[in-house]
Amino acid sequence: MTLPALSDIPDTAAIAGLIRIENSDKDATTPIIMDMLRSVYPHDKIYGDFCTVQGYIDADPRAVFEYLSDTRSLEEWTYSLRGFTETDKPGLWLAYDRLGDQTKIYTRTVASADAMTVDYHCAWDQGEHLWMIYLMRVVDAQVVFNKPGAVVLWTNCHHPFYDQNGYPETAPKKRPVWVGDFWDMFSAGHQLELDNLRAICEYRAARGLPIKPEWMQ
Amino acid sequence: MTLPALSDIPDTAAIAGLIRIENSDKDATTPIIMDMLRSVYPHDKIYGDFCTVQGYIDADPRAVFEYLSDTRSLEEWTYSLRGFTETDKPGLWLAYDRLGDQTKIYTRTVASADAMTVDYHCAWDQGEHLWMIYLMRVVDAQVVFNKPGAVVLWTNCHHPFYDQNGYPETAPKKRPVWVGDFWDMFSAGHQLELDNLRAICEYRAARGLPIKPEWMQ
Repeated sequence: MTLPALSDIPDTAAIAGLIRIENSDKDATTPIIMDMLRSVYPHDKIYGDFCTVQGYIDADPRAVFEYLSDTRSLEEWTYSLRGFTETDKPGLWLAYDRLGDQTKIYTRTVASADAMTVDYHCAWDQGEHLWMIYLMRVVDAQVVFNKPGAVVLWTNCHHPFYDQNGYPETAPKKRPVWVGDFWDMFSAGHQLELDNLRAICEYRAARGLPIKPEWMQ
Repeated sequence: MTLPALSDIPDTAAIAGLIRIENSDKDATTPIIMDMLRSVYPHDKIYGDFCTVQGYIDADPRAVFEYLSDTRSLEEWTYSLRGFTETDKPGLWLAYDRLGDQTKIYTRTVASADAMTVDYHCAWDQGEHLWMIYLMRVVDAQVVFNKPGAVVLWTNCHHPFYDQNGYPETAPKKRPVWVGDFWDMFSAGHQLELDNLRAICEYRAARGLPIKPEWMQ
């Protein structure tokens, strides 16, 4: 005999906040849903703990994934990360974030070809603890939008070091800014960079150029 | 000699909308960024083309991933998907969405253990073209929030069939609703279901119960 769902929990009413059609029918749940919806949402409600931007790119998704998977693509589509060179630790790259007055930024890229995820594990100043994580994923637009192309999802999580530098001793003296000072602007800044990514990929795709350019080969 | 970034593009000014520190310095870019930011955002701006919800769960991320990877977990944490049985096509499950007056829903789950992505490919009424895609990902909170636990990211894309059923001939006659009628409520509905997922996982984790329960083994 097959046990039913939630059969390990003697009394599901003991689970605070559990709302299923069995304990809260449509008439009971509709007002709960309506009360969660707003005509407008405050910035901090949407971009406080997580900063997600997403967009469509008219280019082959696998090619966009291969491009993003190369750490040096950041040299092209980001606003201010420049001068990528691999360190003596394989896969760990050093660059400069020109936003931070020639601040060093370390990056290790972890990509999964299977799910087309590309995670940039980064940090300002030091390369030992890469706590600034850019979680990206490329999705085939044919599947989710019924048209050719790529969808890119990009989420950053509000790590506590954005609010307080965990490694202040590694910061250049008298640097006037900290990366976390920009958290409230990440939604716009990352959208701007995603627009850069789209513009570069679509320019190349429209002209038959490789999405991942020759200089990265 | 190494070629520089964007060396395949003779004139980057030809790429409309490309904003990099080389062509738009901080003084020029700050007002662009500020103009993209709002104190409040309209619902459709945030949840029009994409519906993303995300949250923290105080449970082991690998265990949450293993749980989500089993299609039958939907029987527990969704509001209204019930009665999952595997069809004669391996990996394709039939259930009922009780929101749709006992509407059939077909689901194929594609999980990647490497990136901890779990994609539910679903459709109401027919199992041939699974166009309702629930893109989920579990992330180790230690990495992104510096604390134990799991982060769950969940994005749906506004497929055109939400606006117009691509397979009307498969719909039960006189059914009063279509799944796309609920698109504008997905942000709240999915948040409610993510809260269910959190509540169930945290209940089990706090009591030492397996996150993926016995009845799914």
